[in-house]
Amino acid sequence: MTQNIYDDPEFYEGYGRLPRSVEGLAGAPEWPALRALLPDLHGLRVIDLGCGYGWFCRWAQEQGAARVLGLDVSEKMLARARTASSGAGITYARVDLEKLELPDASFDIAYSSLAFHYIADLAGLFARIHRALVPAGGLVFSIEHPIYMAPVHPGWSTGADGREAWPLDSYLREGRRTTDWLAKGVVKYHRTMGTTLNLLIGLGFAISHVEEWGPTDEQIKAKPEWARECERPMFLLVAARR
Amino acid sequence: MTQNIYDDPEFYEGYGRLPRSVEGLAGAPEWPALRALLPDLHGLRVIDLGCGYGWFCRWAQEQGAARVLGLDVSEKMLARARTASSGAGITYARVDLEKLELPDASFDIAYSSLAFHYIADLAGLFARIHRALVPAGGLVFSIEHPIYMAPVHPGWSTGADGREAWPLDSYLREGRRTTDWLAKGVVKYHRTMGTTLNLLIGLGFAISHVEEWGPTDEQIKAKPEWARECERPMFLLVAARR
Repeated sequence: MTQNIYDDPEFYEGYGRLPRSVEGLAGAPEWPALRALLPDLHGLRVIDLGCGYGWFCRWAQEQGAARVLGLDVSEKMLARARTASSGAGITYARVDLEKLELPDASFDIAYSSLAFHYIADLAGLFARIHRALVPAGGLVFSIEHPIYMAPVHPGWSTGADGREAWPLDSYLREGRRTTDWLAKGVVKYHRTMGTTLNLLIGLGFAISHVEEWGPTDEQIKAKPEWARECERPMFLLVAARR
Repeated sequence: MTQNIYDDPEFYEGYGRLPRSVEGLAGAPEWPALRALLPDLHGLRVIDLGCGYGWFCRWAQEQGAARVLGLDVSEKMLARARTASSGAGITYARVDLEKLELPDASFDIAYSSLAFHYIADLAGLFARIHRALVPAGGLVFSIEHPIYMAPVHPGWSTGADGREAWPLDSYLREGRRTTDWLAKGVVKYHRTMGTTLNLLIGLGFAISHVEEWGPTDEQIKAKPEWARECERPMFLLVAARR
């Protein structure tokens, strides 16, 4: 089963202090860009793969989604989702996404925020999502950008001219990456952008939007420390249609 | 008009010494991957945007293409193409790709190798290519990868552990880049992968393959100095269908 780092006490505590945990969707700087990729959810059946605290599930319900299924591997996250983000039509379930089984053509929209880079068998998961979507159903997701994921020892460097840079290595060496983020030994799976997109295309998905997220001018004005996020993209946002 | 760097004597002379100039398609390490994106050209009408010495045009003709039109901004390159890569059904013409005008639905395949990163108005060029293709016609092209293009001062660095890395900066700052490659002041236009793909999608192209090129194990065995090309991709290869 996928490493369940979210139930690691150290990770869980650190995660709980992130702006995106404290403030919900408003605390995730890429949320406006990700939301822009979603259709009007009114009356739609929505699945959230890696739902965490359920912020998105609740939002989807508020948008008028007919049914929202939030899945996560972390019992702790789900416990909090059930308390903080419950609502009529929202269901939460514990699932290892590597072994997800869903009824065919049962969802209009599949959504996932920053979960797929933890998945070893992404081809398998994409195939199961494809089957679970109705024809013309949409998949909208974010992952850590492969530029952000690739380096063996990720981190900033400062050049002779004082310019900050992101020393990129191993971009074309796909596979497991172990980093220390919130806790030691967090396992992620690096894939090039091409690989991720070609997996989708190979299954019959039509790519409808690809966004390498960076902060807007307004966001940089509000949080000047985000300016360096323009040096390299941290998140990759993708929208595709079955 | 697009900077015609190929007619700069220093650039032209340097370019003429590159393996891809001396050996033709066999000298371009990404050629096998690019070729794999092309359909059987037999009987097809093919256009090559930025045809250079005409290596591809001649190859396409040998594959049985019905008609091959090679376009380039460089008179010098075209002169050599007309001598070295002529053949029945091949036509060469001098064109500034920024101002290209083509008859509607007149080509089955549009091809371009390492030319589009010189184009300021890529949206306009893609639109004109879209119109010039027949329905279900294909666009196959390579460009310098945006990871390769983005840095203000591109080049390798060596980390404390001796590992070579490609310090990436300015990836999300699109626009003009001026580098010294073969000659001083070569002007290119950096766009993120997302931007390039979304331009195509917005015009109605379906993305069929995205490849961030790196050398194969066989290529590294033959030329060990290419191993570091796995640290960051140098070329981006895209196939799309009208």
